[in-house]
Amino acid sequence: MNAPRRLNETELGDVLRGLPGWELREAKLHKAFRFASFVEAFGFMASVALLAEGMNHHPEWFNVYNQVTIDLTTHDAGGISDLDVELARKIEGVAR
Amino acid sequence: MNAPRRLNETELGDVLRGLPGWELREAKLHKAFRFASFVEAFGFMASVALLAEGMNHHPEWFNVYNQVTIDLTTHDAGGISDLDVELARKIEGVAR
Repeated sequence: MNAPRRLNETELGDVLRGLPGWELREAKLHKAFRFASFVEAFGFMASVALLAEGMNHHPEWFNVYNQVTIDLTTHDAGGISDLDVELARKIEGVAR
Repeated sequence: MNAPRRLNETELGDVLRGLPGWELREAKLHKAFRFASFVEAFGFMASVALLAEGMNHHPEWFNVYNQVTIDLTTHDAGGISDLDVELARKIEGVAR
């Protein structure tokens, strides 16, 4: 596996345009999701957990009832990397 | 179902003595868990999610990799209630 590559500002701008609802917050890729219920919210989390484990790249996330907030960063890269973008895209695929 | 009952300070003190590792933080029942891996951490969360849904009483929780922090409160009771204590005990049952 290649080492994760930290994105520069230009690349981040391009990435954010392709990821609706995602924003930079505290130097992480951040999005807040809201679902109809806890069952739907945790079902989403379970799907994301399987994808994240498959990538060996995991989110920082918070859940209360029907709300899930996700922050992505790559400690080994010292910032947002291509792995975070890949995981964000997979998360969008689950959320749709 | 009876309405959840907010606990007074004396009752909270008694509860905390019976729940090792739990503490009051920002007026919520709080505990931090650490596991061997993300798989174990999320497995724990999945078990707690099923129990919480069964109670119709849900945690506020945060996960990053092998760490899970949980905060319990009851909005309808305006503080920590008997429901939070019941959920904390169930969570301990899962964690053991």
